[in-house]
Amino acid sequence: MTTSISIFDTTLRDGTQGEGISLTAEDKLKIALKLDALGVHYIEGGNPGSNGKDIEFFKRARELNLQAKLTAFGSTRRKNSTCEQDVNLKHLIESGARAATLVGKTWDFHVHTALQTTLEENLAMIYESIAYVKRHGLEAIFDSEHFFDGYKANPDYAIAALAKAKEAGADWIVLCDTNGGTLPTEIHDIVSRVTSLIQAPIGIHTHNDCELAVANSLAAVNAGARQVQGTINGYGERCGNANLVSILPNLQLKMGYSCISDEQLKSLTSVARYVGEIANVSLPVNQPYVGTAAFAHKGGIHVSAILKDSKTYEHISPELVGNKQRVLVSELAGQSNIVSKAQELGLEVSEVAKSRELIDRIKKLEHEGYQFEGADASLELLLREAFGDSEPMFTVDSFKIHCEQPSVSGNTDMLTEAIVKLRVGGQQVYTVAEGNGPVNALDNALRKALAPFYPAIANIHLSDYKVRVLDEKDTTAAKVRVLIESSDFHDTWSTVGVSSNVIEASWEALVDSIRYALLSMTRSESVPEAIPESLGLVNH
Amino acid sequence: MTTSISIFDTTLRDGTQGEGISLTAEDKLKIALKLDALGVHYIEGGNPGSNGKDIEFFKRARELNLQAKLTAFGSTRRKNSTCEQDVNLKHLIESGARAATLVGKTWDFHVHTALQTTLEENLAMIYESIAYVKRHGLEAIFDSEHFFDGYKANPDYAIAALAKAKEAGADWIVLCDTNGGTLPTEIHDIVSRVTSLIQAPIGIHTHNDCELAVANSLAAVNAGARQVQGTINGYGERCGNANLVSILPNLQLKMGYSCISDEQLKSLTSVARYVGEIANVSLPVNQPYVGTAAFAHKGGIHVSAILKDSKTYEHISPELVGNKQRVLVSELAGQSNIVSKAQELGLEVSEVAKSRELIDRIKKLEHEGYQFEGADASLELLLREAFGDSEPMFTVDSFKIHCEQPSVSGNTDMLTEAIVKLRVGGQQVYTVAEGNGPVNALDNALRKALAPFYPAIANIHLSDYKVRVLDEKDTTAAKVRVLIESSDFHDTWSTVGVSSNVIEASWEALVDSIRYALLSMTRSESVPEAIPESLGLVNH
Repeated sequence: MTTSISIFDTTLRDGTQGEGISLTAEDKLKIALKLDALGVHYIEGGNPGSNGKDIEFFKRARELNLQAKLTAFGSTRRKNSTCEQDVNLKHLIESGARAATLVGKTWDFHVHTALQTTLEENLAMIYESIAYVKRHGLEAIFDSEHFFDGYKANPDYAIAALAKAKEAGADWIVLCDTNGGTLPTEIHDIVSRVTSLIQAPIGIHTHNDCELAVANSLAAVNAGARQVQGTINGYGERCGNANLVSILPNLQLKMGYSCISDEQLKSLTSVARYVGEIANVSLPVNQPYVGTAAFAHKGGIHVSAILKDSKTYEHISPELVGNKQRVLVSELAGQSNIVSKAQELGLEVSEVAKSRELIDRIKKLEHEGYQFEGADASLELLLREAFGDSEPMFTVDSFKIHCEQPSVSGNTDMLTEAIVKLRVGGQQVYTVAEGNGPVNALDNALRKALAPFYPAIANIHLSDYKVRVLDEKDTTAAKVRVLIESSDFHDTWSTVGVSSNVIEASWEALVDSIRYALLSMTRSESVPEAIPESLGLVNH
Repeated sequence: MTTSISIFDTTLRDGTQGEGISLTAEDKLKIALKLDALGVHYIEGGNPGSNGKDIEFFKRARELNLQAKLTAFGSTRRKNSTCEQDVNLKHLIESGARAATLVGKTWDFHVHTALQTTLEENLAMIYESIAYVKRHGLEAIFDSEHFFDGYKANPDYAIAALAKAKEAGADWIVLCDTNGGTLPTEIHDIVSRVTSLIQAPIGIHTHNDCELAVANSLAAVNAGARQVQGTINGYGERCGNANLVSILPNLQLKMGYSCISDEQLKSLTSVARYVGEIANVSLPVNQPYVGTAAFAHKGGIHVSAILKDSKTYEHISPELVGNKQRVLVSELAGQSNIVSKAQELGLEVSEVAKSRELIDRIKKLEHEGYQFEGADASLELLLREAFGDSEPMFTVDSFKIHCEQPSVSGNTDMLTEAIVKLRVGGQQVYTVAEGNGPVNALDNALRKALAPFYPAIANIHLSDYKVRVLDEKDTTAAKVRVLIESSDFHDTWSTVGVSSNVIEASWEALVDSIRYALLSMTRSESVPEAIPESLGLVNH
């Protein structure tokens, strides 16, 4: 029987301390749903005491009915005060979270320098704060800040602080390497010492300042820790937190611990990429386990060996974490994949020749920078077209953009107009529209042209727009990939466009998005009804 | 007295196996000089048997008179043949390198599956190949490919292979975790076993497939390994090689080994960034030790503690590795941050009123969607302006974009032209330029207008361009934030622009970027000398 490890995700709290990571309440809700599906046991949503955004998140998160324990973060009470008087603790209790993480000091130096109080008062702060949240029926997790530095400086005091937390009823005592400066051997020794002295469930929380956060987490588990705190893709302050995306498969596939189900582990790659997309941080291609290059084989010898037996140059089978091997053939180009995808769409795929042709086309497009993993709708259009199951709905003759800032000093708004020439059915439609940006203007002109023919187009809106530079050489002249996400009341779909010209790439994704929408409308009798403004997740 | 560890850099060989990493001979020579100054002991330059580019590199590298031992990479001889008949070994000898790395098999499974020969023949290949390069007066380093997998599968054979290499006179026997799948505890156990059985200097070569390459290298050193092989920034196939940029300070500052001088360690940050520039890969902001965020502190408790004593939230002093502390001016916590930032820039901040005014301005801008933590240069311009320490260099009257796709079906390229009207000094400048996108066209027009006044502008190039949608409601009409990163031969800086119009936001960031560059040029007397075409750096 395998030992299980509790996975505590703090992407939404500590993760947002990372430079350049900022998430709206909306973003956080989307990520929380993914984390819950992945099967983590705790989702730390934020610090309701610190800002209104987090209060809103907790309010709305209650409606998600998560399996994971929704957790709120806060500090032990202020010095020389009481918990009842502490506004942050009050917010924490009122957040509606099922568990509370309370961070407290265990390093005497910090008690003196940062808190500027006495060692005794700090122990009282820990005891009373833990007891307070327990009294209010929350599970209590004690994050012992700087524990390892504290233990090295004054082991007796560091241990005394943990003992206080346990005495007050803490459900978990988590040892934090807050500054990320501790080595795996030290972690192993100190955690072993703690587990021998403190009879409570122990957790580990590490940072990556020495590029050792993953190793330190594993060392702690080897020494008896049973909860691991970390973030998706290792987001976090300075060099980041421990990366759960690497820790999960290491614990489960290599060390024989159980954390999540095998099925959930298979979603690891898509979760990591999804969170990266929402945070608008492109995943490093070489990210362990989930990067697009993690199982990509370049050099000749490797490839020939791989073809003989993939075990020769792969430490695990990529499928276990939902990733794919990439050799000469790109992920989509395997004929079997194409055929199964086409059958999934109910297409007639008897003609082998056609699917070959299609594979070559997709290979070519991917080589040019298209990426269909994030653009299901564009892929479906491609397939339907290849298998002769789509009318284009409309064709584009030409389009133009004029963009002008007549007087910078005068603070006048920019004028942007788009002119598009289309053919719908037999008719030519020639329309012009303004917008407060080129893409908005094109979108408006396109809708204006199509509305008379397809009134239901009114229900479609763009829900996300992302631009990625593909080639960093001479960036403004490089190719860009635009990903557009669109929604109606029923559905959300993504399309892609690639060009050295961001306007052209955006237009391409825009046209795909509308085409896909019109196709599914004509396919399903039921034209989507208008969307109530109130709905959070759909019509953001 | 401290034990010294030999540092073997393979950035120029294994590092170039990384996806998206490709280096010209020119690039490699520049990097070799930096590595030599950093003080690594071996520089593996490439595989002269595999391609002409590497042969050229070795030819030209001889003229550099490196302190480090220039090393050439190759494989043990072909099966059922002789070393004298082996073309690759011939190239290796003729390369003029002082040392040779020979990779050979130690995993029986690989001997059968990949080499498809007998276990005996493989031992002969190892023995004869090592003896051959020794006979030709080269130092011999045996890279035992897949050693750890091999040891787990068949310890006796794996050890026998190492013994053969030693018997043939190998100067170093390097244990490779080629697939990157081994855990630190396993590395420690197996290396301890090897050092007890093989009386020869042992090295370690790890890969990062489990995000454990750094930890595995340290574990091997703890078990007696005395050479560490790795690459700058961890470049390498799949998930990369062990990152020397993290290993060096870990060994030297935390574990008490000596590798390079303290002065050389202070150049670590600039070396890591330089190699990133040449490889044209932007360094992750959160890269341990050397990233721009590695010692960056975001608002609140941390900052106030840092100001009391930086030891509170820093595991080492950033200066030891040539990095520096940054207080991120995000959700601009109080006056103290602004004032300290201004003082850092050597500005006269006596007027409290002014800094108050400035804080309100910055708060307002951040509320509008600006984000200065990722845009130091825009923040600096703002501060200098507020404290009356900047001439605008040029002012913008107006700008226009025309963007046209005359015939979609005709597959004609889009035409994009930008027209800008500026004032430089007293003069009005009115220029037009084409580009393969609106931002590129604006960039070209701006340079065209300014080049006659500031020729050094030719040395500046955009190195990254990011677009982030701020308000997800009705996205194409939402506000966007554009972040632009620019570089010259000396430096890298970031600027920000926000608008509902992506063109306007890009223009704003572009103008800030050029203004900042011109300001620093005029501030430092030495206008950066024009850079010869031949140097990859500027004109990528």
